[in-house]
Amino acid sequence: MLALSFDPEPKLVEVPDPVLGEGDALVRVLMAGICGTDLELLAGYKDFRGIPGHEMVGVVEEAPLPGWVGARVVPEINLACGECNMCRAGHRKHCERRMVLGLIGRSGAFAQKVSLPLDILHRVPDSVADEEAVWAEPLAAALGVWELGIQAGEPVLVLGDGRLGALLALGLLWRGADVELAGLDAEKLGRLEDLGVRVNRDIPRPVYPWVVDATGSAGGVEAALAWTRPTGTLVVKSTCHERSVIDFSRVVVDEIRITGSRCGAFPPALAALLSGEVPVKRLISKVFPLNEAVEALRESSRPGVFKILLDMRQ
Amino acid sequence: MLALSFDPEPKLVEVPDPVLGEGDALVRVLMAGICGTDLELLAGYKDFRGIPGHEMVGVVEEAPLPGWVGARVVPEINLACGECNMCRAGHRKHCERRMVLGLIGRSGAFAQKVSLPLDILHRVPDSVADEEAVWAEPLAAALGVWELGIQAGEPVLVLGDGRLGALLALGLLWRGADVELAGLDAEKLGRLEDLGVRVNRDIPRPVYPWVVDATGSAGGVEAALAWTRPTGTLVVKSTCHERSVIDFSRVVVDEIRITGSRCGAFPPALAALLSGEVPVKRLISKVFPLNEAVEALRESSRPGVFKILLDMRQ
Repeated sequence: MLALSFDPEPKLVEVPDPVLGEGDALVRVLMAGICGTDLELLAGYKDFRGIPGHEMVGVVEEAPLPGWVGARVVPEINLACGECNMCRAGHRKHCERRMVLGLIGRSGAFAQKVSLPLDILHRVPDSVADEEAVWAEPLAAALGVWELGIQAGEPVLVLGDGRLGALLALGLLWRGADVELAGLDAEKLGRLEDLGVRVNRDIPRPVYPWVVDATGSAGGVEAALAWTRPTGTLVVKSTCHERSVIDFSRVVVDEIRITGSRCGAFPPALAALLSGEVPVKRLISKVFPLNEAVEALRESSRPGVFKILLDMRQ
Repeated sequence: MLALSFDPEPKLVEVPDPVLGEGDALVRVLMAGICGTDLELLAGYKDFRGIPGHEMVGVVEEAPLPGWVGARVVPEINLACGECNMCRAGHRKHCERRMVLGLIGRSGAFAQKVSLPLDILHRVPDSVADEEAVWAEPLAAALGVWELGIQAGEPVLVLGDGRLGALLALGLLWRGADVELAGLDAEKLGRLEDLGVRVNRDIPRPVYPWVVDATGSAGGVEAALAWTRPTGTLVVKSTCHERSVIDFSRVVVDEIRITGSRCGAFPPALAALLSGEVPVKRLISKVFPLNEAVEALRESSRPGVFKILLDMRQ
């Protein structure tokens, strides 16, 4: 099968079909999405080698339970052992021996086929199109911020006008937060306004009870801190391979909470996609066929570009 | 009256008695404590000028309500306006126009007399000695960490073997947490063990659901992060005038919460002092008379020294 591999340079490779372990399904990938984390892997994050990709929708071709064959599915990304201290404490996504699809110990979705444990698969409702379903994982991650305790009507500032910031703003709006977004790219900000996102172009003032850093840059947390009001919460959502410099005396004196947020639950994301009320399709900048995946990566890192998808069906 | 003033160099000065504003009491200071924050002021924090000091016990000499005259009292440190957005939202200690005793806009306790609004005063039970009562403010701040949601029996690591770390460990032990402490000063660690604090001398492992940074150093948060388990909480308790360098990708991936904590409620602290179960007197390294205050500051910053008190009664 054809796959995109990081070696560490990205290149298209012909590799054998995946070997299935116990409990695994063989899934034919329909579409996959390029995430900022994939670009971070290219920049050196985790010294990654192999097939990346953790945003996808596919069709089950083989499965240990016959009822799954033919199902259109989206996978969660964490594969838990079920036996370690964290798993037994109910924190399966923080399993001490976890593998993560396309990130740690497990080949990812930028391939024509992928082996996935049945227990991380979610069925996709028929009325959700492939180019919507492929958003399930990043939308679940965005909606995970809501679960930290945001109340309907509460002001939330999303910092960052990239693909993650856009999805956070649209997802939190859907949930009922009073969302504003700040960023640096005038063109992107204009497009987000067209999607109904209110943009804050003022200089930072520490007035927001919730600020989400989705800048993907080392300076993002410090910038977000300048918008966070005393006793407020700063959610760090994007990863960055550089370290950040922070004035923690502000955090102490103003008793600010900084919370890391990675993944979220899939059912709310699938419900959002089913509702049609989160306009994910309008965030797609371009769709590339798999055999143009290297070009797709380059396009994904260009300024002004939101989401790039890979179409594996061709 | 005699006072210690930072100009910015510390020196003893003869100044007029305080002028009382509306609602203020005139309080004769009995004892005052030197805090790490006072030393930070000397190191440049907040460009402070004037009379510092925010840990004290005193006797009311004049008051707008006669029932207070003669009362032995300890003051909270935040003076709120009662009218701003934060005050109206119930966050009086984060008042937008607040003054802070000995820190912001209000002369502090390193003087023979101080003017204090009646509404920040707490009466001290008779059986609590002056050299115990002077601990009310720092002990309240230490016990404030408990209020963040620690459960009885939960493991807590306190990082830092100074006066703040010691008080945190003893306070959280009193509350019922399963406390360990890590630090660098072998002599201090030995003395804390004598007080019943369990010391962890292992290399850092990310196993604690709660870690409190009380190092007072810019590297403290990063060090504390190495002990914090996924989904755990890192409480930043000490302030430092330098900025810290942090790997936020660990915070995101492991969904760690970092919480700043400054002040705490006084009633639990007074209850702890009344119980006699928190051995604060054993943390007193030395008591200096006010006229040796400059030497007391120097002593307070020496390695191996816990709490230095100023006795104003002489």
